[in-house]
Amino acid sequence: METLRCGQCLSPLSVDYVEETVEVPAGPQHAGHPGPAMPVPVHAPAAMVTLGEGNTPVIPLPWVAQEVGLRSVYAKLEYVNPTGSFKDRGTAMVLSVAREHGVTEIVEDSSGNAGASISAYAARAGIGAHVFAPSSAPAAKLQQIKVYGAQVHLVPGPRQAATDAAVAYAAERGLVYASHSLSPYFTEGTKAFAYEVAQQLAGRLPSHIVFPVGNGGLFLGAWTGFGELQRRGLIGRVPHLHCVQARAVMPIVAAYYGQEWTARPDARTVAGGISVGAPPRMEQVLDVLRSTGGSAVAADDDDILRWQRLLAEREGVYAEPTSAAALAGLEQLVAGGVVSGMDVVLVPITGFGLKDAPPQ
Amino acid sequence: METLRCGQCLSPLSVDYVEETVEVPAGPQHAGHPGPAMPVPVHAPAAMVTLGEGNTPVIPLPWVAQEVGLRSVYAKLEYVNPTGSFKDRGTAMVLSVAREHGVTEIVEDSSGNAGASISAYAARAGIGAHVFAPSSAPAAKLQQIKVYGAQVHLVPGPRQAATDAAVAYAAERGLVYASHSLSPYFTEGTKAFAYEVAQQLAGRLPSHIVFPVGNGGLFLGAWTGFGELQRRGLIGRVPHLHCVQARAVMPIVAAYYGQEWTARPDARTVAGGISVGAPPRMEQVLDVLRSTGGSAVAADDDDILRWQRLLAEREGVYAEPTSAAALAGLEQLVAGGVVSGMDVVLVPITGFGLKDAPPQ
Repeated sequence: METLRCGQCLSPLSVDYVEETVEVPAGPQHAGHPGPAMPVPVHAPAAMVTLGEGNTPVIPLPWVAQEVGLRSVYAKLEYVNPTGSFKDRGTAMVLSVAREHGVTEIVEDSSGNAGASISAYAARAGIGAHVFAPSSAPAAKLQQIKVYGAQVHLVPGPRQAATDAAVAYAAERGLVYASHSLSPYFTEGTKAFAYEVAQQLAGRLPSHIVFPVGNGGLFLGAWTGFGELQRRGLIGRVPHLHCVQARAVMPIVAAYYGQEWTARPDARTVAGGISVGAPPRMEQVLDVLRSTGGSAVAADDDDILRWQRLLAEREGVYAEPTSAAALAGLEQLVAGGVVSGMDVVLVPITGFGLKDAPPQ
Repeated sequence: METLRCGQCLSPLSVDYVEETVEVPAGPQHAGHPGPAMPVPVHAPAAMVTLGEGNTPVIPLPWVAQEVGLRSVYAKLEYVNPTGSFKDRGTAMVLSVAREHGVTEIVEDSSGNAGASISAYAARAGIGAHVFAPSSAPAAKLQQIKVYGAQVHLVPGPRQAATDAAVAYAAERGLVYASHSLSPYFTEGTKAFAYEVAQQLAGRLPSHIVFPVGNGGLFLGAWTGFGELQRRGLIGRVPHLHCVQARAVMPIVAAYYGQEWTARPDARTVAGGISVGAPPRMEQVLDVLRSTGGSAVAADDDDILRWQRLLAEREGVYAEPTSAAALAGLEQLVAGGVVSGMDVVLVPITGFGLKDAPPQ
């Protein structure tokens, strides 16, 4: 639970299953209707820390499909989760492992959805939580973190300062640093996304999935899940997994194109959830882009806000700007010929617009 | 679609099925795993206006159970819906019927969750929406109504003035008044709540369900659904359905006890979602209370806010004050001996706390 990076190369770790692997049914878990079994890194699934996360709806976006010139675009409404974002899938698993290991107090750094999610699941688990956030974080997001009872530590300076302070605080007090970007258990939770997609769109599995990517918590989880399903012969191929970042903070897009890129300390984007200058799992994200034939594109803030508005007004879907970035990216992928007319495309809507309202 | 009340007695109408009834699977709708069939008032279910509403999680509330002295308390997280409240179940059906009837523009009055929901589903259906709201409505709620593109009409004066203005506007322009409190289709959507509970808690169907009640849109829908299930032999008995209202606005509680009660124009409660001084379906609500052996209780604002805080800090569930009122009511029902130790109790968490944050 406490080792987050390789002692040699400092890379973040991943989970592998060796023996006596425990599996749970994925997808809708009603009596008599289990989905395919999914391996999980806990020994007693019945004791998992859960708020009923996952099993999010998939709906067609007919207006969007016509607008960008595709036959079928689907959205998976990942914000329809207990704290309003996809993070709940990952934090449920991180907190379940923590409780199984007898952890009583954790430390995390976040200014947004991850902080709210970990605060809620820590409350649910009876585990104390310290969330370190930049003092510039939006009041509405800090409010949600506080409401679940986490102790919020505000840190002046850039986003990285909050991370550094969290690491130092955990080390000083011997607490577990339950980082959503580093913990290998986080993506073991988000991989259920892939199991659900395979069930919900059985027979028309999307050929392309377009993700907004900051740390890659959902992107890497989806890849893990699709990989498991493919190895077990439950799906024929893994969809092309694409990355969208904001123009102002695009380390993965730059690396994908072999360009130099350095985070500017004053970089700002409306897509706060993917404003991650140095993602710890960037090499893994690049590997997945290459191995699935995915692309990486950068979206401008104006386009992101335009798509946030269009999604609400035309499809009835109120997304965070971060989530709308995926649509701005999809538009570019179609324009560039990467995605074309008859392809079936899926876009996760990762966070609720209520948490990050558009300018009035 | 346009007739909302009986021409003789002015009572609101209900739906009855006569012939060629169309049914849809209730509960998780994945290939091969349909739930029991549920009759719906549309002819082409495949063309329904949907954002993937429903199929909300049921989770145990172990801390709450211990605190109030019961063996089992469950919550059904109705706020885990596309616009953040249970209203989506009802508005999905109202807008589906409207679209099937070729309606292109509707009028509604609301200052909260219903307005946001109808605005979203109207956008989804390609139907124009006018939402009349009191000019004193919270800015955050008006913002969500606007984001989906509805035209918001602010009306000075008490809540009733917004209703009167909506009715007049619809009449003048020959538009459909798609009232969530009057339309008989609304509860045909919310009745799916009962179908899901019967599936999710099969084998331990709750003996008591405690609802926050304003107009009774979920309460009456649940009763309709359980009634259908019972008549078809799919459940043995209908649970006791209880009503909780806020002390300041308690017409149903007063009527239940045979007391005189008049809405004070300056009445205020933190539970805005159940602040309905003259519910059009009050007689129906009273009938259901009597026929299911339910009770009606009034909760104080202090207790409502205390339960909002406890739900978040102890269970990780961020409810609106309106939803927390049900827990304050449950506490009274246990104290009064109406609900006791071995009973299985369910509480719907009807709206997301993000929309109505507690005082800091």
